[in-house]
Amino acid sequence: MPAYRPPTGEMFALLEEVLEAGPTLAALSGAGDDPLPLLRDVLEEAGRFTAGQLAPLNRSGDEEGCRLENGVVRVPAGFDAAYAAFVAGGWGGLSQAPEWGGQGLPRAAQILLDEMIASANFSFGLFPGLTRGAVEAIERHASEELKALYLPKLVSGEWCGAMALTEAHAGTDLGLLRTRAEPQPDGSLRVTGGKIFITAGDHELAENIVHLVLARLPDAPPGVRGISLVLVPKYLPDAEGRPGARNAMSVGALERKMGIHASPTCVMNYDGATGWLVGAPHRGLAAMFTMMNAERLFVGIQGLGIAEAAYQGAVDYARERRQGRAAGQSGEGPQPILVHPDVKRMLLTIRAFTGAGRALALWVALRMEEAARHPDPGARAVAEGHVALLTPVIKAAFTDLGFEAAVLGQQVLGGHGYVREWGMEQLVRDARIAQIYEGTNGVQAMDLAGRKLAMEDGALPARFFALVRSEIEAGAAIPGAEHYTAPLAAALKRLEAATARLARRAARDPAETGAAAADYLRLFALVALGWMWVRMALRAMRKGAEATPRHQAWLDVARFFLARILPQSVALDLALSEGAAPLLALAEEAY
Amino acid sequence: MPAYRPPTGEMFALLEEVLEAGPTLAALSGAGDDPLPLLRDVLEEAGRFTAGQLAPLNRSGDEEGCRLENGVVRVPAGFDAAYAAFVAGGWGGLSQAPEWGGQGLPRAAQILLDEMIASANFSFGLFPGLTRGAVEAIERHASEELKALYLPKLVSGEWCGAMALTEAHAGTDLGLLRTRAEPQPDGSLRVTGGKIFITAGDHELAENIVHLVLARLPDAPPGVRGISLVLVPKYLPDAEGRPGARNAMSVGALERKMGIHASPTCVMNYDGATGWLVGAPHRGLAAMFTMMNAERLFVGIQGLGIAEAAYQGAVDYARERRQGRAAGQSGEGPQPILVHPDVKRMLLTIRAFTGAGRALALWVALRMEEAARHPDPGARAVAEGHVALLTPVIKAAFTDLGFEAAVLGQQVLGGHGYVREWGMEQLVRDARIAQIYEGTNGVQAMDLAGRKLAMEDGALPARFFALVRSEIEAGAAIPGAEHYTAPLAAALKRLEAATARLARRAARDPAETGAAAADYLRLFALVALGWMWVRMALRAMRKGAEATPRHQAWLDVARFFLARILPQSVALDLALSEGAAPLLALAEEAY
Repeated sequence: MPAYRPPTGEMFALLEEVLEAGPTLAALSGAGDDPLPLLRDVLEEAGRFTAGQLAPLNRSGDEEGCRLENGVVRVPAGFDAAYAAFVAGGWGGLSQAPEWGGQGLPRAAQILLDEMIASANFSFGLFPGLTRGAVEAIERHASEELKALYLPKLVSGEWCGAMALTEAHAGTDLGLLRTRAEPQPDGSLRVTGGKIFITAGDHELAENIVHLVLARLPDAPPGVRGISLVLVPKYLPDAEGRPGARNAMSVGALERKMGIHASPTCVMNYDGATGWLVGAPHRGLAAMFTMMNAERLFVGIQGLGIAEAAYQGAVDYARERRQGRAAGQSGEGPQPILVHPDVKRMLLTIRAFTGAGRALALWVALRMEEAARHPDPGARAVAEGHVALLTPVIKAAFTDLGFEAAVLGQQVLGGHGYVREWGMEQLVRDARIAQIYEGTNGVQAMDLAGRKLAMEDGALPARFFALVRSEIEAGAAIPGAEHYTAPLAAALKRLEAATARLARRAARDPAETGAAAADYLRLFALVALGWMWVRMALRAMRKGAEATPRHQAWLDVARFFLARILPQSVALDLALSEGAAPLLALAEEAY
Repeated sequence: MPAYRPPTGEMFALLEEVLEAGPTLAALSGAGDDPLPLLRDVLEEAGRFTAGQLAPLNRSGDEEGCRLENGVVRVPAGFDAAYAAFVAGGWGGLSQAPEWGGQGLPRAAQILLDEMIASANFSFGLFPGLTRGAVEAIERHASEELKALYLPKLVSGEWCGAMALTEAHAGTDLGLLRTRAEPQPDGSLRVTGGKIFITAGDHELAENIVHLVLARLPDAPPGVRGISLVLVPKYLPDAEGRPGARNAMSVGALERKMGIHASPTCVMNYDGATGWLVGAPHRGLAAMFTMMNAERLFVGIQGLGIAEAAYQGAVDYARERRQGRAAGQSGEGPQPILVHPDVKRMLLTIRAFTGAGRALALWVALRMEEAARHPDPGARAVAEGHVALLTPVIKAAFTDLGFEAAVLGQQVLGGHGYVREWGMEQLVRDARIAQIYEGTNGVQAMDLAGRKLAMEDGALPARFFALVRSEIEAGAAIPGAEHYTAPLAAALKRLEAATARLARRAARDPAETGAAAADYLRLFALVALGWMWVRMALRAMRKGAEATPRHQAWLDVARFFLARILPQSVALDLALSEGAAPLLALAEEAY
């Protein structure tokens, strides 16, 4: 089983040097004068916790899985103690509001913690991950009474959250859902219906589980405009927040899945369960989207975390396993397979993602901070626009690249990669879910190509492209920087052309958006990652004689990305230029 | 669980119309005047057998897996009866020599049977698959005595075969292996050593299992020039071929794997086991390569078969599952998700592989037939060259594309794709092994870019490119054909340039080959698949008014491939043009 080494040095270098997070955070109210030393301590402590307490349970959790025993969900051995340590360490409330007992640390710290958890134990991360989404939805949309009763327990992690959206016949198309919520004289709702695919819908880690359930009120209009969000706790709390009577809800079954075996995926039955409306009647989808956007970024980070774990496992093997010799070299005995260029290709392909992916995620985290805390409403709106634009990119591209990274890491191990005890095949199985849940990556691509590009008359992508261009222009002052900036400039030009072309075509035929979406998102992600590689390379070049091996590595991996990965942008642009027609030609009966 | 529908109509149309297999096979001795009617009957029967007897065991075999009980390997329920039916139906000897009891049918029929088996039950296919490899090695290299004793039983399938190459410290680098073979006074050898990853190394389906073991004779030179091939049967047969005493070999353990759970992957111990030399002393690797080349094509076909299964499962779901409506359409109720362009994209991406991949595999099968039976030695040599060139392409590209197809098919099902009972995630887990075993796909890429391109001073690729070019030129006579031929001509030009450039660079620095290999193989495969799509499109265009929906589908999927997939060749060429330097820059200690 691969040992996990939290890359806290790299994380901190990105924060400090590449993203200049110190001044950004210091300028935002509440972040303190020099927030970096505290962040560094938190990162180191998070590294110790995830590597020491969560990573050792990853393989055993996969083997043991979850069980449903007489209606009670049992998680694998050790998860209860690890979760208790998580709560005791205050990790649940790391970036949550101090008002509710959180530590109020920046989202950048949260994202790095999430990455480490995903690397160490992907399944474990779903318990607090869903809880945090629930906190965001309640914080923004629930009544003061519900907030006061539920948020302190959810923020501390004593209680957990769950999202109950999907029904057997209503997945991507939530407008079809049938779960009913009937108003009661006391102001509560009685919720009746069945939900599937409810991650962490039940377990014994927390003393209560708070479900956010999408349901229809009796007077609801049909479709997505008639959906309300209802808070349904497993145990009904008394006024002091002590869990009381068991609510009328139960687990019908646990899904048997390809991976994330340590995370219970529940079929939930609500049989007249008591709940309370969150937000306005019939406006539940908007409230749920608050939660889903938070979850989508979280899921993208899971892709990043699994890629880092795959990289570490593959590098360890490539250093230890001796087979053959480097081409053209003679000598005694076999060499570590790391000498073979094709092994380097696989490892560098992972690094080309993790290095810039982490930087991009941190950049988004800083924009989230601005969106929440910047004193200027205009700056808040711009930051929010960047987050909105990049959320589907990070969810879909990071999970696709995370899965590809897990597959490459497994490939480095050859036959051993296919054997369970080595732990690499689990990464592939676990990574696969992230491309599917929280809106499939096809749905994310439609969100980007359909909704986000069109927002504010196209201002969101235009503002983002301007940032990339300014980075390219900043390189003009550095001799030799054009080796890095020129390929990115060409790719940006292709992306801008593809964006304008898609807008023109989609106005004529709405099918053009769907036909372009997946390839367009990939093209967008390549430019966004290229932007971060150029940023890292320029920072490294500016170091001059003070450059460390880390800076040299940024330059070397940037070069690999720009030379061997970014050319995919040419192919994507060419494919996109052909439009929808070649994709729609085959008659549906001929499939 | 997806039901399997053998695509025998498409298979036969490819044989008859696209590959003109009738005249080719009729011209080869032994194939009969008009072999197609018989082939059609065989295909239909194979379809009934695989869909009726093997497909129903696929999910249960995955769930139950294999067990080692008191040294005896137990396969899942139903596999014994299915294997007995396989033997009784004569499927084991379908393409084997009548001299040994085979039916002597063309390899094209074998390849189509192999595809159907892989679609229906990937794990099952490994029992006869390994056996056939053993037959080929014994037929070509063993003594007449060994042939007479072993081949009839192996050809009928009453006995099974296994390949014992890998040792714990010797995988890709077989020169490191340590298993010893000591000559005995009676001319036999005593084999001592341990092997791992031995597919179907032991089981009770057959009354005997014949291992081909790589080992060192006492006077062996070090490295790969000191390896001999030894036939080691589980039970020592008497002169009449009745299995007698148990040989000194045993199963140490079964590997627990990501997939192919119904195929026992054995740790084998040979404790002074009795065996007999196959081929010349110290020349075992050459003999084993006969077996491995056959296996590599077989494994490539497994990738094709799993892609077909994934396609069928995904199309079934896309027709039945109703969510949302096509963009821009109004109306009552949700539509089948097949209307969404992004779903079509996923399905067409699979078809873009399976359609042309099947045609290409059949083309190679016909060249194998020529290599074995053509009266002209020159024609035999040319055919053999084509097979040698395309073997690594088919093994690596078909298994990569097969895995990608399985992942896409799973994605079409959304959350249900991740749940075991739907059967799609099993396809992903099973498909994954094909990229690893029988020489990882990295090893295949090195075989193509290093060895095969250089053979006969580069004549192999030159002859292949000439064939592609002549297809393009044949299109000049057909109005409108340039829409199909022009993109292929451009891609061929890129591949030819990349080939020449690689030869120049590799002469200067052998690391260039390894740095290019994987991307080069993918580029090669895209052109080879494009060649077949153009061939199919031109055949369809020539049909004119007689074109059927099948011909229209060939035109439509060809168009999709050329417009939306083949542009990848531009990116690969650009990445390759950068050479090894960007891939070698990062210092090994910085990984």
